[in-house]
Amino acid sequence: MTRLLVVNPNTTATMTETIAAAARQAAGGETAIEAVTSAMGPASIEGFYDEAFAVPGLLATIAAGESGGAQAAIIACFDDTGLDAARAMAAIPVLGICESALTLAAMIAKRFTVVTTMERSRVPIEELVDRYGMARKAHVRAANISVLSLEDPNSGARDKLRSEITRAIAEDNAEAIVLGCAGMADLARTLQVEFGMPVIDGVGAAVKQAEALVALGLSTSKRGAYAAPVPKPYTGMLAQFAP
Amino acid sequence: MTRLLVVNPNTTATMTETIAAAARQAAGGETAIEAVTSAMGPASIEGFYDEAFAVPGLLATIAAGESGGAQAAIIACFDDTGLDAARAMAAIPVLGICESALTLAAMIAKRFTVVTTMERSRVPIEELVDRYGMARKAHVRAANISVLSLEDPNSGARDKLRSEITRAIAEDNAEAIVLGCAGMADLARTLQVEFGMPVIDGVGAAVKQAEALVALGLSTSKRGAYAAPVPKPYTGMLAQFAP
Amino acid sequence: MTRLLVVNPNTTATMTETIAAAARQAAGGETAIEAVTSAMGPASIEGFYDEAFAVPGLLATIAAGESGGAQAAIIACFDDTGLDAARAMAAIPVLGICESALTLAAMIAKRFTVVTTMERSRVPIEELVDRYGMARKAHVRAANISVLSLEDPNSGARDKLRSEITRAIAEDNAEAIVLGCAGMADLARTLQVEFGMPVIDGVGAAVKQAEALVALGLSTSKRGAYAAPVPKPYTGMLAQFAP
Amino acid sequence: MTRLLVVNPNTTATMTETIAAAARQAAGGETAIEAVTSAMGPASIEGFYDEAFAVPGLLATIAAGESGGAQAAIIACFDDTGLDAARAMAAIPVLGICESALTLAAMIAKRFTVVTTMERSRVPIEELVDRYGMARKAHVRAANISVLSLEDPNSGARDKLRSEITRAIAEDNAEAIVLGCAGMADLARTLQVEFGMPVIDGVGAAVKQAEALVALGLSTSKRGAYAAPVPKPYTGMLAQFAP
Amino acid sequence: MTRLLVVNPNTTATMTETIAAAARQAAGGETAIEAVTSAMGPASIEGFYDEAFAVPGLLATIAAGESGGAQAAIIACFDDTGLDAARAMAAIPVLGICESALTLAAMIAKRFTVVTTMERSRVPIEELVDRYGMARKAHVRAANISVLSLEDPNSGARDKLRSEITRAIAEDNAEAIVLGCAGMADLARTLQVEFGMPVIDGVGAAVKQAEALVALGLSTSKRGAYAAPVPKPYTGMLAQFAP
Amino acid sequence: MTRLLVVNPNTTATMTETIAAAARQAAGGETAIEAVTSAMGPASIEGFYDEAFAVPGLLATIAAGESGGAQAAIIACFDDTGLDAARAMAAIPVLGICESALTLAAMIAKRFTVVTTMERSRVPIEELVDRYGMARKAHVRAANISVLSLEDPNSGARDKLRSEITRAIAEDNAEAIVLGCAGMADLARTLQVEFGMPVIDGVGAAVKQAEALVALGLSTSKRGAYAAPVPKPYTGMLAQFAP
Repeated sequence: MTRLLVVNPNTTATMTETIAAAARQAAGGETAIEAVTSAMGPASIEGFYDEAFAVPGLLATIAAGESGGAQAAIIACFDDTGLDAARAMAAIPVLGICESALTLAAMIAKRFTVVTTMERSRVPIEELVDRYGMARKAHVRAANISVLSLEDPNSGARDKLRSEITRAIAEDNAEAIVLGCAGMADLARTLQVEFGMPVIDGVGAAVKQAEALVALGLSTSKRGAYAAPVPKPYTGMLAQFAP
Repeated sequence: MTRLLVVNPNTTATMTETIAAAARQAAGGETAIEAVTSAMGPASIEGFYDEAFAVPGLLATIAAGESGGAQAAIIACFDDTGLDAARAMAAIPVLGICESALTLAAMIAKRFTVVTTMERSRVPIEELVDRYGMARKAHVRAANISVLSLEDPNSGARDKLRSEITRAIAEDNAEAIVLGCAGMADLARTLQVEFGMPVIDGVGAAVKQAEALVALGLSTSKRGAYAAPVPKPYTGMLAQFAP
Repeated sequence: MTRLLVVNPNTTATMTETIAAAARQAAGGETAIEAVTSAMGPASIEGFYDEAFAVPGLLATIAAGESGGAQAAIIACFDDTGLDAARAMAAIPVLGICESALTLAAMIAKRFTVVTTMERSRVPIEELVDRYGMARKAHVRAANISVLSLEDPNSGARDKLRSEITRAIAEDNAEAIVLGCAGMADLARTLQVEFGMPVIDGVGAAVKQAEALVALGLSTSKRGAYAAPVPKPYTGMLAQFAP
Repeated sequence: MTRLLVVNPNTTATMTETIAAAARQAAGGETAIEAVTSAMGPASIEGFYDEAFAVPGLLATIAAGESGGAQAAIIACFDDTGLDAARAMAAIPVLGICESALTLAAMIAKRFTVVTTMERSRVPIEELVDRYGMARKAHVRAANISVLSLEDPNSGARDKLRSEITRAIAEDNAEAIVLGCAGMADLARTLQVEFGMPVIDGVGAAVKQAEALVALGLSTSKRGAYAAPVPKPYTGMLAQFAP
Repeated sequence: MTRLLVVNPNTTATMTETIAAAARQAAGGETAIEAVTSAMGPASIEGFYDEAFAVPGLLATIAAGESGGAQAAIIACFDDTGLDAARAMAAIPVLGICESALTLAAMIAKRFTVVTTMERSRVPIEELVDRYGMARKAHVRAANISVLSLEDPNSGARDKLRSEITRAIAEDNAEAIVLGCAGMADLARTLQVEFGMPVIDGVGAAVKQAEALVALGLSTSKRGAYAAPVPKPYTGMLAQFAP
Repeated sequence: MTRLLVVNPNTTATMTETIAAAARQAAGGETAIEAVTSAMGPASIEGFYDEAFAVPGLLATIAAGESGGAQAAIIACFDDTGLDAARAMAAIPVLGICESALTLAAMIAKRFTVVTTMERSRVPIEELVDRYGMARKAHVRAANISVLSLEDPNSGARDKLRSEITRAIAEDNAEAIVLGCAGMADLARTLQVEFGMPVIDGVGAAVKQAEALVALGLSTSKRGAYAAPVPKPYTGMLAQFAP
């Protein structure tokens, strides 16, 4: 049995339920998913500022999960918030849903479009696209919806998402669609049928990458950039995080 | 039960056995591996010329496998020989071991080195590194060994491979090693212990990516670059391949 | 007298006539053009799959031409199909029409647009544009016409091509046009007059690059990536190609 | 009088003194420097993990400084820790010392080398170099010294720094040196004389960029990526940071 | 007192007045601006040809200014005409207004648009954007106005400029605007208020970069690419420029 | 008969003789080479400063040649000095020897090294390599010899050049060598035999590109970046160059 921790750094429990369901649907028969809402930080992550305050709670949750026996951890926010810090901290592998989704997209399509929520999240995701070497392959679009509006079936958010996918096909020649928010995790299979083309959810993608690394006996390198943090004094209310 | 076809486009059956063993070790409990040696082409693939003649046999094997019920196919040559053609041809997902290995490497290390066999394969792999967006992250080195010498424990090939890994650590600051030939698939776990750092084999990596795509209900987009081939007349001895 | 082999890897003899005429028009007074239709493979090359099956016949034709005294070879398909394999195989220089056309375009314009046939060929050509270092300079557009429809004056293909050139000027600020299919080779001079801007055909461009290399005593390097193939056993119906 | 806030996100007061002195030396006659040690986080920032826990205290300090009338803020850590979050949060301009130093270096040299402290900081700085568009111009080297050892004249750290500069000149053809740690801010002028080439400290560089933006009436755009955070509920001990 | 030389390589004195006023408005209280119209070359610089003939007069003016005690020089043409030659020639730092403006833009916005005068200047500025590593961040647009028409309030040039800014916001998602001609230097503050977003003028930006370098004791490296010219014979009417 | 103008912007007549001989050796039977030493500027071009003062004389020579019936012009300096200005000025095609040489090198080798004269010319050539899209393919090295020392068989310059080629093979895995100075034009064939690998001279390469463009009826686009200069007043001693 492989134990995977899925952390929702958005501190909204109903969103975690959506994420957990998507993770469980993706997981293999021998994988147990533990989905946890972070105990510290903003209700939703929309842009650089929110990201910063989501990280401490996220890392605390991963550390607790690792102590409790999790074999890999997934950060369920499309900004891959705190991913590098988590990889440096943990001995177990840590996956981001943006990196995981882009990776699978590139294996089934030459050109694809990420559709995210708000305009302020578009450039941060473009920077991830650059960092993951996908600049030539991926467009990023914002549907101008808030993260939490995805929870409300009457918000109109899903219709705006559909409209943006339609534009991606027409204007970007998109061959596949990547859903650019963990809160869209329940929509991938429906939209895939509706649009007749691959639609990729990062939560499911990351579950499979986590299973892959565990099965292959691979974990984060502790040489170089992800070397374990050096013990040192901490000041103030974050002192509990001193390595 | 997920049925995965692993094709060795190097027409050397003993090499296929090594590949099959690595694939089975990586596969989940509900995955059946069918490993097949291509029936047409060179005994080993070393450079651009050999690649060209490995492709027809490779595609024939994938087409037969797909007809026989395989749910995904893996091309077990680190040059990702024929990968784009196979993706256009097949309805099932097709994985390359170079793309799969680089993908996992980038999830556990910021900088890594691919160690391949012959110098003539170094630049083709550098071009794949570029295409997969990994130019800033990955070095490529050749150990100056032939593909088939890896089969012979007395050839000295494995010692040359070890020496090249040692140089990668010292000169490239490599945080992880990617084995740049399907014929090295049996060495990853041993070398990982020996060098105390992640060592990634592409065959196992591709098995997990194939399982991921099948489990998530994802397959190659048939819009754009991977649209199914248009039926048309063929001339000469390859006419059997007309779509 | 310089003897140049021009191979049409599309196995359609009427198309070869168009190509041959363009090659002869471009050739210098001391150059003899031998235009040959490949004896194996698809009637036209449209996308990755067709490319794969065009290569063996193409390489056989080049090998025969080289034995017969050709001093350079040209692959008359805009996907530069099999170019790297041919360069590794042959002692004589081998030219691609895409590389040759982009090269000349960059010497007379800062920004230009390639207009090709079908959408499925657009991304493969964009990948060539990247590989040849022209990503900042060149757009690629598809006119949504089949390769062989260019042969039929009543197909409407040429009007679609004109429309796409008009869009390239308006939307891409194109300063020059590159014709993205060997089957358009007869149209360059007409369209150049019609649009009042440079229009470049790859067949003529490649003839001049071939003449250049021969005149300068330059041929493909046999160090590194293009080193001659290593002799080795071949299995199956391609065994005649064993080096 | 222009009021500049310089925040040391390393919670080590003696290091702040070094930074403050460098900032004051760089500041114009009409600039007042307020140098503040962050009240929360690690004693020194060495790698991705430390960065994450430095950000909340850093942002709190900038918010307090802005309320108190600071006209621009400088983050005195070469990783440009929290820079994007701070720019989204604040109405005043926020400067990073890495971005500022690389900017000035590129105005006086075509090729230069950043010398930082520990190997685990090398790749994070390379990623900044990429993000700031300097990949072709800048090398990054680590002298293998800890941040706080720079405070101790008997630690040997400064000699290791000198040795690494010597190697940068010989091996990288460096035309200028950038000091890759705020803790080196007092060394720039001495090393510049010693090596007879430009040596750039980021703290001074950022002071001048801050003065520039204030004088020109420019501040962070509030359209797009740096739009002000959306008010939303926060959970747990970081709730004070809810916008 | 810091003495800055601002050279207008466009040989139009009224344009120099606009530039001088912008420079003085940006300059600190301890900075003296000497604005000089080049004595040789075209009345305005629009494209590659004009650039070439502006350089000798520009360099002569900088050399004279340096002899006269200027501590830094600014080239007030957005093409950064002659910048590399000037840096090799002078011992004092030399700033370009394009590089300076892009630098400040990147510190306050993630995505921005340069609006320049004529279409023939668009690609030269795109090449500067590439060279300065800003290709992912900056669009370039031409308003189709001549440089000198900016001098004439009745020319309609300013309205065309406003229209192009409006398009940049709508089509490029521009977060800030960079004015792509020294002749627009007086418009930045007005347009900033009018459009409610940062508008950056390169002349002011360069004044602050020049002050920064002088204050920090930094000047152009004389190792490598900017090494002082080697004395050698000159032929013809430019012989006065022999180093 | 095709009439080609070859301009040596280095105002050293003996060097022009070397260039003329190489051009004539490369030229086809129907090509007449007119080699001209520029009448204005430095005796040799070594770095950015020299380049600037070579341009006016170079452009004057090209303008005169075009008036006199030349059908294409070649700038015989490896920095491609003044190339963009010349293309904007002239109706006939203009070729640079760096662009021409890199182009042919990329058609016969995947990785190659440019060996130039002085260190101060290395970075300018690296910038050309970037601009021509060859950054992944080409290294640049300086042999630390002056341009004119190549004229003197007893200067030791040629031995230093050989040593640098030897290092390029050993350290860069160079598959071909490009001679990075017009003054080396007579050495290509000798060195090619001596090193047993392709050695490319830019003068010969440019002659063939010029013949190609003339034969194909192609010339510089007059849309966009290379549009003809706008007539305008000129001030000072360069007024004769007003368009």
